[in-house]
Amino acid sequence: MNLYDWKGKLQMENRIRYATLQDKVVSAEEAASWINDGSLVGMSGFTRAGDAKIVPLALVERAKKERFQIDVFTGASLGPEVDEKMAAAGIIRKRAPYQGDPVIRNLINTGKVLYMDAHLSQNAELVRTGIVGPIDYLIIEAVAITEEGHIVPTTSVGNSAIMAQYAQNIIIELNTSHPLDLEGLHDIYIPGDQGHREPIPMTNIEQRLGTTAIPLDPAKIKGIVLSDITDAPSLIVQPDAETAQIAEHLLHFLREEIKIGRLTERLAPLQSGVGSVANAVLNGFLNSEFHDLEVYSEVLQDAVFDLIDAGKVRFASATSITLSKECGDRVYGNLDNYKDKLVLRPQEISNHPEIIRRLGLISVNTALEVDIYGNVNSTHVSGVKMMNGLGGSGDFARNARLGIFVTKSYAKGGAISSVVPMVSHVDHTEHDVDVIVTEQGIADLRGLAPKERAKLIIEHCSHPDYKAQLQDYYDRAVEKTGNAQTPHILEEALSWHTRLATDKTMKK
Amino acid sequence: MNLYDWKGKLQMENRIRYATLQDKVVSAEEAASWINDGSLVGMSGFTRAGDAKIVPLALVERAKKERFQIDVFTGASLGPEVDEKMAAAGIIRKRAPYQGDPVIRNLINTGKVLYMDAHLSQNAELVRTGIVGPIDYLIIEAVAITEEGHIVPTTSVGNSAIMAQYAQNIIIELNTSHPLDLEGLHDIYIPGDQGHREPIPMTNIEQRLGTTAIPLDPAKIKGIVLSDITDAPSLIVQPDAETAQIAEHLLHFLREEIKIGRLTERLAPLQSGVGSVANAVLNGFLNSEFHDLEVYSEVLQDAVFDLIDAGKVRFASATSITLSKECGDRVYGNLDNYKDKLVLRPQEISNHPEIIRRLGLISVNTALEVDIYGNVNSTHVSGVKMMNGLGGSGDFARNARLGIFVTKSYAKGGAISSVVPMVSHVDHTEHDVDVIVTEQGIADLRGLAPKERAKLIIEHCSHPDYKAQLQDYYDRAVEKTGNAQTPHILEEALSWHTRLATDKTMKK
Repeated sequence: MNLYDWKGKLQMENRIRYATLQDKVVSAEEAASWINDGSLVGMSGFTRAGDAKIVPLALVERAKKERFQIDVFTGASLGPEVDEKMAAAGIIRKRAPYQGDPVIRNLINTGKVLYMDAHLSQNAELVRTGIVGPIDYLIIEAVAITEEGHIVPTTSVGNSAIMAQYAQNIIIELNTSHPLDLEGLHDIYIPGDQGHREPIPMTNIEQRLGTTAIPLDPAKIKGIVLSDITDAPSLIVQPDAETAQIAEHLLHFLREEIKIGRLTERLAPLQSGVGSVANAVLNGFLNSEFHDLEVYSEVLQDAVFDLIDAGKVRFASATSITLSKECGDRVYGNLDNYKDKLVLRPQEISNHPEIIRRLGLISVNTALEVDIYGNVNSTHVSGVKMMNGLGGSGDFARNARLGIFVTKSYAKGGAISSVVPMVSHVDHTEHDVDVIVTEQGIADLRGLAPKERAKLIIEHCSHPDYKAQLQDYYDRAVEKTGNAQTPHILEEALSWHTRLATDKTMKK
Repeated sequence: MNLYDWKGKLQMENRIRYATLQDKVVSAEEAASWINDGSLVGMSGFTRAGDAKIVPLALVERAKKERFQIDVFTGASLGPEVDEKMAAAGIIRKRAPYQGDPVIRNLINTGKVLYMDAHLSQNAELVRTGIVGPIDYLIIEAVAITEEGHIVPTTSVGNSAIMAQYAQNIIIELNTSHPLDLEGLHDIYIPGDQGHREPIPMTNIEQRLGTTAIPLDPAKIKGIVLSDITDAPSLIVQPDAETAQIAEHLLHFLREEIKIGRLTERLAPLQSGVGSVANAVLNGFLNSEFHDLEVYSEVLQDAVFDLIDAGKVRFASATSITLSKECGDRVYGNLDNYKDKLVLRPQEISNHPEIIRRLGLISVNTALEVDIYGNVNSTHVSGVKMMNGLGGSGDFARNARLGIFVTKSYAKGGAISSVVPMVSHVDHTEHDVDVIVTEQGIADLRGLAPKERAKLIIEHCSHPDYKAQLQDYYDRAVEKTGNAQTPHILEEALSWHTRLATDKTMKK
């Protein structure tokens, strides 16, 4: 289809409603040619949803003929087509604030790409203060441009709204693969500068605070590129017996909280992190007695839509929707059935401590490893190699009513214990971790001193193959430190990780 | 003075204005006799200000004749007379959420007292959900009881307001050593339950949100004990050449932020942690060009009042006032001069993430040690022995506009480097630490990847005696890990601490 056909189609579909912008339609190649070596480039996209695609891929093409590098700042991870190909082409100097791709991960862990991961709720402040800036270009995917020249985003909001305020130039990827009736799904609220802002006026998860499009100065729109590349579907890992057990332990715990009177059957708004274990935990609610549930999360995965379909979830708020092919077809093919139960917000709002604390979320995130005192490593394999990044786990765990971390008790067929004497990297301290769940059981750590926590974690969460070994470490640490506040044998604290490197197992 | 004299004096002074309570005046011994073995006892007090005194000391007397133990939950540390004597008498089974006393610290580190430290802003949620509870008795110091039977607290609010809602019984220490005109200083605002609360309506630090007295059901007041024991004065450690240097580096940094346009000369509300280094940093503002400053902190120490007297600080909000004898005489002897520039709030509000983030504080807290990637240990000596506790440092550092940590670059005459390869305990992760300042210099870590952070911290913050040793560790870690995201040699990462134990120095 040539540009003129596109323009006709667009007008018909009412996708560019700010008339003077219709002359700004350019090819992806041309838009990609504007970006200078050394630029900071903002891109829309959060966990492979609503990411800029066609211009980054044109940048990859351009790199075949010309050497240049850029810094890339997004909402979270882009689709593999995009993050992977840009990384492989060697055009990324620095990446922030989150990624989840094996190719870029390898470059990060061999010193070829600098990577700054950060609490996702705080990215907007970095943009406001210019710590991340100046943003030379923002490439943002849109379903439409409104009469005011504002942008209707697609399947994620992420950091797009704040970047649109501060970016010097904007390139819009108008993507016709997304249905136009996504319009109305988003709620764009941008707090003012710190010290000059009002309380965020949200007291329930379905409340709308702002506009349905991202406000910006249309004069900054340098070009519009037409695209029909679809979001990369998420790769579904089906729940297995152990993730089902984790879900069962968690549901049992929640039922006990209801008995004590701390929760009702409607629970509290649920947040669930990215990934298969967290998705499986949500799946656990499908065959439960819980009803009228609410989800206030950063990403909505398949499980949330299964729960909506089953009448278990009444409303869901997030900053992105990341679905499998099958689920995506179901949802976007019947958007009318879902639209009144959904809202997508900037990640500054979906992950804001003010809201998380006020609403009192139940937050479930995945740990890479936990230690006997309840510290959690979410990011670094053996303390040195970056996996994905911190994401919003800290935003939620710190401020939630219940900061819950889930993990299988072992990995690599048992060579790795997910419960270790001391985590090799700390992302969440003992003070931000309320509950730990593995397939073995659950440890409710609230209000406990470190030695009380150790007893529960070793007893309830560790794998039988490692329980005695953990208990032995703990007992000797108590002995050696004279029963100090947090007993450790520093010479040995990280020896499980070094043994893994040499013996290929943490087992003694 | 016998009870009848007291009662006359009290009526005259208008300290018990809810008439039926005048018959509840009892001796400290009697009140202390009501508390059962195994009870959870709440006590007012925050950093030795406004603490319960005469009833805890009567408990200590009672322990000479009878064996019993209680759990003690407060705002923060009590005066040394109280925390120390209760600990030494062996009556504390478990202590939370903060302490700062050598005697109780020693018992904590020898397994004789359980200790749970926690983010001070979050204590109220623990009380609301009953994780800390039921509170059998709350012992709370007051300057007066109002016509409604509500309590006017003294020199701190701490957790008293929330505990008064949930405690089953209340004992009031009516303390005539505090001037009655403290009344009106406090602003008691108590958010509702999570999920059923409004935004906290504060947009500037002097705004009053609630009542001047703590509301409660007067029927819960079991007794009133008369007291005139004064708050324990703080022990002032005068600024020295190195803390003055830390202040100078910080002021230089703030001036640069003004040049860039990120701050104005009025800066932003300042928070400063407990202790001498943080106090010294505030002292640095005395001879600066800054003016009309605001303080939004948990504790107001001497330096804040020096700044008020010098016309540098226009208003200060906190949850407690902890002063030296000399400064206390000046302030409480001339309260009229200060009262319109001060407000004391519950620690849930003084430390609330919602407010800290909205106002965009500049937060300065003390580190025990920092590592080359910017992780901070605030609490544990060599990873195992508790010093004081986390306090509010996490509430502030995470949510502030600038999360700044200060420390001298060395301790114990140079045997200890405060900059180490890996901290032996993590209280604040790299993601919550914006700026590190030592007498050597300053590292601005915002927006940087770990390896970028390491370069700045080693170069600007470490002591010359340790710089080469740190650089050598880092270089070998980069080599060994193939330049991974966060280079470490796990076998060596904690060797500086183990060397200190064996060789009495971290030097190689």
